[in-house]
Amino acid sequence: MKCRVCRAPAVLDIRRHNAAFCRDHFLKHCAEQVRRSIKDHDMISAGERVVVAVSGGKDSLALWDMLIGLGYDADGLYLGLGIGEYSDASGHTARVFAHERGLKLHEVDLAGEFGYDIPGAAAATHRAPCGACGLSKRHLFNAVAIEHGYDVVATGHNLDDEAAVLLGNVLRWETGYLGRQHPVLPEAPGFARKVKPLYRLGERETAAYCVLRGLDYQVEECPMAEGNRHLGYKDVLNALEDRSAGAKAAFVFGFVDRAHERFTDDAGAEREGLGACVVCRSPTTGDVCAFCRLRERVASRSGPSR
Amino acid sequence: MKCRVCRAPAVLDIRRHNAAFCRDHFLKHCAEQVRRSIKDHDMISAGERVVVAVSGGKDSLALWDMLIGLGYDADGLYLGLGIGEYSDASGHTARVFAHERGLKLHEVDLAGEFGYDIPGAAAATHRAPCGACGLSKRHLFNAVAIEHGYDVVATGHNLDDEAAVLLGNVLRWETGYLGRQHPVLPEAPGFARKVKPLYRLGERETAAYCVLRGLDYQVEECPMAEGNRHLGYKDVLNALEDRSAGAKAAFVFGFVDRAHERFTDDAGAEREGLGACVVCRSPTTGDVCAFCRLRERVASRSGPSR
Repeated sequence: MKCRVCRAPAVLDIRRHNAAFCRDHFLKHCAEQVRRSIKDHDMISAGERVVVAVSGGKDSLALWDMLIGLGYDADGLYLGLGIGEYSDASGHTARVFAHERGLKLHEVDLAGEFGYDIPGAAAATHRAPCGACGLSKRHLFNAVAIEHGYDVVATGHNLDDEAAVLLGNVLRWETGYLGRQHPVLPEAPGFARKVKPLYRLGERETAAYCVLRGLDYQVEECPMAEGNRHLGYKDVLNALEDRSAGAKAAFVFGFVDRAHERFTDDAGAEREGLGACVVCRSPTTGDVCAFCRLRERVASRSGPSR
Repeated sequence: MKCRVCRAPAVLDIRRHNAAFCRDHFLKHCAEQVRRSIKDHDMISAGERVVVAVSGGKDSLALWDMLIGLGYDADGLYLGLGIGEYSDASGHTARVFAHERGLKLHEVDLAGEFGYDIPGAAAATHRAPCGACGLSKRHLFNAVAIEHGYDVVATGHNLDDEAAVLLGNVLRWETGYLGRQHPVLPEAPGFARKVKPLYRLGERETAAYCVLRGLDYQVEECPMAEGNRHLGYKDVLNALEDRSAGAKAAFVFGFVDRAHERFTDDAGAEREGLGACVVCRSPTTGDVCAFCRLRERVASRSGPSR
């Protein structure tokens, strides 16, 4: 197995590209995929400030590392979700990464600042924790970006993530979600731009990137996500990819190229007529935004003393 | 397990409906699903003549039986595909079914009338046989309908078939195919209307219908389809259905209700500017239609003596 570029011994093959790479050309390949994503979708313009949503896992650290490598002005944001040892370890990893490189890392602790954590929210809502976690992240990534004047929130969603979410949205034809599922969600009043520069890279590639760059990342997956629907979709897609290399890329890229725009009316309609949340001033369709309603719900379950 | 309607002992449960039925109410349930499909999509109007594409399998015989039971004027059409014993047995089954009920069955034999069979076409095209088979069926069902003045071609595609085809079309975002995938494809110059009245019934249900009605059907699946992509998609969908009953129905019905119309422009464009095939006069985008090109290709491979 030889590097496609320089014919040196390869360290990794990528079946869907029918190619193998040596260390250096693999890292260049990853950076090139990210550069292309940013360029194709006008994700970040010259002089814009980026905040990277950093979990401490392979994707977010690879993303932050690549954005810095490509010369972008990118700080990090870590959310303390309160998921026991998993959160302790991932927070530590994110802090070490930032400290060693002299990068700025914002931190928001759900329990300390908002009085709840993800296990508590799951118990209060009697639902899978991933719902409350996703809601909290979406709200706080945006709120911090707006508060600190960042133009762009960059998240580490990779090709496998996007394919799994897309499959779930397509299986139920969630037309509003389909209209919002894109490598770029444009800025709007009260909303920073959201971008996913890793959407062309598989999770095997972001993991290899971290290993080959010597980035110390949190290998453990979130213990609360076990058995969730999203991971089931990943299994299905891995089976399809095994039978036909490139299936995931064709699914996600084909959607972006030929189908997404057919669903944008639904997403646009949901963003119109938004007011400000009476509690936190974030954009919302009702009086109180979903984030503040979640906080209220967890607080009321914990009793009046809290 | 008791019948949802009459509380008698049930013979079958349908998880996605969270219901079980006795024999009689299950048969009524099936007929009601077909009646509803026809009504919801204006598949067949009063006085229209229907030709049912009959393979001898469970779906096509259940369909023909139900259409007759619902009072429609429905004849059958059997295509001799030349797939060895499988074709011999399925042709026999179709003939017996028609004969016992005094129904009219048209027959077209590919080898006798067009000089090729499906195994020969697969060999000549160096492709999976299912492509040549589908092309031959689409062409001849329509040609026979036009020739004999039928308004409607009814095929036995069930919920599992539609879900598998939809998954394949979505994974590659085949926008033209998505625009044409619908329970009804309207009539157009040179095209009879195509309808799929079984799209609300799973294949387990059409099989049970045949067993409970005492219909003798060809149980064996086509030996040439083994390992094809379509069956792989069925496996994937069965796994999703196991985890979440109703997943296939939500996928297909959601597409019909909320997504199909977003793709019809692509399908419409493909039907415009059609001319007549210089060989057979069927509508085509080129000079010679795909069916006649397939015939030529198989004939030229077989040598000039044929």
